[in-house]
Amino acid sequence: MKIAIAGAGAMGSRFGVMLSRAGNQVILIDQWAAHVQAINEKGLTVDTETGSSQVKLPAYLPADVQEKPELVILFTKSMGLANMLAAIEPILGETTKIVCLLNGLGHVPTLEKYVRKENIFMGVTLWTAGLVGPGHVKLVGNGRVEVQNIDPAGETAAKEICDLFSQAGLNAVYSENVIFSIWRKACVNGTLNTLCTLLDCNIGEFGQLPQAASLLRQIIAEFALVAKATDQVTLTIEPVAQQIEALYDPKQAGLHYPSMYQDLILHHRLTEIDYLNGYVAKKAAELNLATPICQLLTELIHAKEALLVK
Amino acid sequence: MKIAIAGAGAMGSRFGVMLSRAGNQVILIDQWAAHVQAINEKGLTVDTETGSSQVKLPAYLPADVQEKPELVILFTKSMGLANMLAAIEPILGETTKIVCLLNGLGHVPTLEKYVRKENIFMGVTLWTAGLVGPGHVKLVGNGRVEVQNIDPAGETAAKEICDLFSQAGLNAVYSENVIFSIWRKACVNGTLNTLCTLLDCNIGEFGQLPQAASLLRQIIAEFALVAKATDQVTLTIEPVAQQIEALYDPKQAGLHYPSMYQDLILHHRLTEIDYLNGYVAKKAAELNLATPICQLLTELIHAKEALLVK
Repeated sequence: MKIAIAGAGAMGSRFGVMLSRAGNQVILIDQWAAHVQAINEKGLTVDTETGSSQVKLPAYLPADVQEKPELVILFTKSMGLANMLAAIEPILGETTKIVCLLNGLGHVPTLEKYVRKENIFMGVTLWTAGLVGPGHVKLVGNGRVEVQNIDPAGETAAKEICDLFSQAGLNAVYSENVIFSIWRKACVNGTLNTLCTLLDCNIGEFGQLPQAASLLRQIIAEFALVAKATDQVTLTIEPVAQQIEALYDPKQAGLHYPSMYQDLILHHRLTEIDYLNGYVAKKAAELNLATPICQLLTELIHAKEALLVK
Repeated sequence: MKIAIAGAGAMGSRFGVMLSRAGNQVILIDQWAAHVQAINEKGLTVDTETGSSQVKLPAYLPADVQEKPELVILFTKSMGLANMLAAIEPILGETTKIVCLLNGLGHVPTLEKYVRKENIFMGVTLWTAGLVGPGHVKLVGNGRVEVQNIDPAGETAAKEICDLFSQAGLNAVYSENVIFSIWRKACVNGTLNTLCTLLDCNIGEFGQLPQAASLLRQIIAEFALVAKATDQVTLTIEPVAQQIEALYDPKQAGLHYPSMYQDLILHHRLTEIDYLNGYVAKKAAELNLATPICQLLTELIHAKEALLVK
């Protein structure tokens, strides 16, 4: 199948490499010029547990793509989604399917501006990947991905996408409720990413704090309030909190600094806060619900952005 | 007059030096052994705009004081008040007057455990001072202090204390509503101290943030809610906010890192948060009022303490 990876950072590169090795025609699309150039000149350098290799894949800046893919896998940062879609609109045909695997909340309305609902598929992945530098990724560990259509008419196609992914070793399952899974993952990011960034600590250090249990549950409660009101999704606080607490173990994510920490504190880049706690606070305001914790955390992260991002 | 300064850090030393120079018999009491020892061995080293001098004043650890003062001026950190009072209880007589000049909220009930209400005087000061090291302070700039009795029977005595202070050059005025002034100053500390500490910036940098105006007013609104409910004090948000905003100017406090920042971020010491936002949140909980901003800020500062204080 002809597949475009739109947003070919670490995770997009992982999906591109694995789908390409399974026999698909994959192109990478990314807005980072040095990355695109490096991939085209030397191939994508892929480090794994067993060694390093070069993978030849065509790479393009968003405005330069001509080829029309059958499937587009979106893996941009949340704040890059709308720009990416606008740039690649010319290659999106009537039957082009879109799988959106971004973190964060609130992406469906953005997708619907560019793609018919029956061609939109939402997913959540537990794969990980690291970007070493331009044209260079590190792919270790194992993962899985779940995908679901957002329009009832898309169920067969969603299952075919799962088959395509699984044939490439991506361990895909058809989700009966991907919107729930997206909210549940947003709870992970809306707690650990946000709080580790504000408190300047890693996930394990956060987990040791006497305040951790209460902070987690207060935030999840606000996510649950808005998940129910906007998407009729029921998030039960305690199991979601305990799933997050399992990550404190150093053998899980305990030694890890979340992506928001890396973006803002290490690299002085803008964060995805508006698609996590900020989305919850904004939707709550529209619905006249109170989410003061998410509101304040969003303002504090934006304040830190104003201090740190040039 | 025989005066004891209980808590002889930078500010206590300032009051001690100025009152001593005006002819009073002053002793210093502090729990920091190296500071007490240095003062007793070499005198208190005082740097001013015009030079440096040694001031001979007797200094004691709290448990070692024998002399009974007529007036005790309390200048501990908020969390040190109860311990100080317990330690110096033997020297507090029936007629010993206490002037409490600490920052923060909620000190009166602590004082009332040790001193009869008519002997308690509350104050707020705008003097500043810096601690250079053990036995060494820096006293520059100008200031003023306001004092009021908390019992109607104490008005004459309060005015006499103001006279005593003013004779020493401390620019004292009798306050008609010192509890209001204490709340207003707590608003300064509960916004700038707390937010600069969480955001890792100085007062001027905080003032430049697009989020500053809204954060200030949200916090002040919660202080106002509790000030009214507990002390029948009316804090009007806008003038209090504007008074704080005047400090952003680099000629005012713009280049200054607040004391909480210095305590926690620079010196890894516990903060006064439980006597600022934490007091507001605790009183609000008792009164069934909602102060989610103060509650969360308190938890975040405590979390940072758990990370940074050994």
